Amino acid sequence: MTSSTALNPPLDTNLWSQNHLAHVEQALTLWVGDGAPAGLGDAMRYAVLDGGKRLRPLLVLAAYEAARSGSSDSAAPEGAALDEAALRAACAVELIHAYSLVHDDMPCMDNDVLRRGKPTVHVQFGEAQALLAGDALQAFAFELLTPDNTLIPAATQAALCRLLARAAGSAGMAGGQAIDLASVGVALTEAQLRQMHRLKTGALLQGSVLMGALCGHAAPAAYEALSDYGAAMGLAFQVVDDILDVVADSATLGKTAGKDAAADKPTYVSLLGLERAQAYAQELLAEAHAALGRSGLPDTRALAALADMVVRRSH
Amino acid sequence: MTSSTALNPPLDTNLWSQNHLAHVEQALTLWVGDGAPAGLGDAMRYAVLDGGKRLRPLLVLAAYEAARSGSSDSAAPEGAALDEAALRAACAVELIHAYSLVHDDMPCMDNDVLRRGKPTVHVQFGEAQALLAGDALQAFAFELLTPDNTLIPAATQAALCRLLARAAGSAGMAGGQAIDLASVGVALTEAQLRQMHRLKTGALLQGSVLMGALCGHAAPAAYEALSDYGAAMGLAFQVVDDILDVVADSATLGKTAGKDAAADKPTYVSLLGLERAQAYAQELLAEAHAALGRSGLPDTRALAALADMVVRRSH
Repeated sequence: MTSSTALNPPLDTNLWSQNHLAHVEQALTLWVGDGAPAGLGDAMRYAVLDGGKRLRPLLVLAAYEAARSGSSDSAAPEGAALDEAALRAACAVELIHAYSLVHDDMPCMDNDVLRRGKPTVHVQFGEAQALLAGDALQAFAFELLTPDNTLIPAATQAALCRLLARAAGSAGMAGGQAIDLASVGVALTEAQLRQMHRLKTGALLQGSVLMGALCGHAAPAAYEALSDYGAAMGLAFQVVDDILDVVADSATLGKTAGKDAAADKPTYVSLLGLERAQAYAQELLAEAHAALGRSGLPDTRALAALADMVVRRSH
Repeated sequence: MTSSTALNPPLDTNLWSQNHLAHVEQALTLWVGDGAPAGLGDAMRYAVLDGGKRLRPLLVLAAYEAARSGSSDSAAPEGAALDEAALRAACAVELIHAYSLVHDDMPCMDNDVLRRGKPTVHVQFGEAQALLAGDALQAFAFELLTPDNTLIPAATQAALCRLLARAAGSAGMAGGQAIDLASVGVALTEAQLRQMHRLKTGALLQGSVLMGALCGHAAPAAYEALSDYGAAMGLAFQVVDDILDVVADSATLGKTAGKDAAADKPTYVSLLGLERAQAYAQELLAEAHAALGRSGLPDTRALAALADMVVRRSH
């Protein structure tokens, strides 16, 4: 097993992200809201386009490339089929993320009026349209994964739907949100807080990694290691989110700062204190890197860079 | 081509429905909310179990059996694989239907407090939990269609997800709801009203038929005829819904009667008048039966009975 840095020159992370995001943005622009009635399509596009870090799509594509780097046919020209699957998976995870934000922001949930520096969807389009746009985005994620063509093998389509449904559902993101809902004003143990976050944000982040690994035909051992990477990185994401909620201001975050404390929600900062939370984020980052080392994959530079970005981001 | 009645004795529709619903109810009871955090699981089960006509699951199973009756291996003992797929498809369409009702009933949509004679989910569990339960039910529908086993071929899993995603999404149910939302107080033409209902309720009803036909390996011509059946029956369902909203009372309906007129929503009754709406429902019923005749399938008795039930129901 060799680490990714031993064999490869440093990755220009910005350039890598820009190149890959260009494909994702183009595909989302083309696909989202296509065929939808006018008002609904507008709300769907507003929720998805022109905003966000696109962390989940980048994780899909980075995991796809890492897996490909370790496959026996990696020297062969990349097949259109695999690219198509990874691109669709990248868009699908972003649709699930976008729908969850639309519903999360609604008055009956977090009642947020600002998201990515813009009015939230229900402020812009009304609550009913926001509810429907979220619902339609979730359905569209699964539609994207199941094109009626032979470019993506049926087994890949089914496996991608399986991973995404589990990551999004009651034992994943939606389940974590429900625990979150029930936790306001409740003193959680660290284990309970970790479980909540593993589901609420971790499941879809880890699911993104796994969907990319699947598209890249990762061998079982590599798939396991990437799964560990996804778990550590996903939890790190949430610890850092909790930290930023305390130390950053709303302008930097692009959303309302300090709302967790104001809502009396348990966070890693309220549980561990700021310093220990910051140290914990570093530990999880080290775990993520260690998992990449264990993967045996020759090139995990993009995944490594994304984990670094998750922990070192300012918003 | 022979009609279903020429070759087969009359079907005991009640017995057929009871037998098939027993499997669906047992499966839903086993599966829904399993693995979900307590509060969320309760809301999901409340939304799905113990209520509803289960029309969509019955359509899946009836179409499955009709397709099987025409397949060359119909004399062979029924494989576990096909039964498993049809049962999961039957449950999945009901989950989509149930989630749409939960979200539809919310204050920002129809603001309904009564459903199937019980308080609606948001009245019982709060709006936030209702929103999440709906979201989780949609994800769970796709989870049910993609079990991690080989009982259901990957191609079937992928095709079922494809049909369900399209039926549920912005060019299906959610799209129809958005048109509905934009139509309050607006004078629609009959063509516009038909398009709204084709999406809002027709897409999932027709999708149910197609998913069953797919599980039963319908030949292309039979699949097309069943698709026509689904379209006519789906539209008939909505015409009758509009009629019942005028002629039935809330106790019989199990939901608030007269709400379309009160909300100034366009309906077939407001557009055509009661008598012509009733005649139109009969025309559509005849179209549905004609499509079954065209299917060439030896036994379409259950589908025929379900279409009759749709038009002759009192709630």
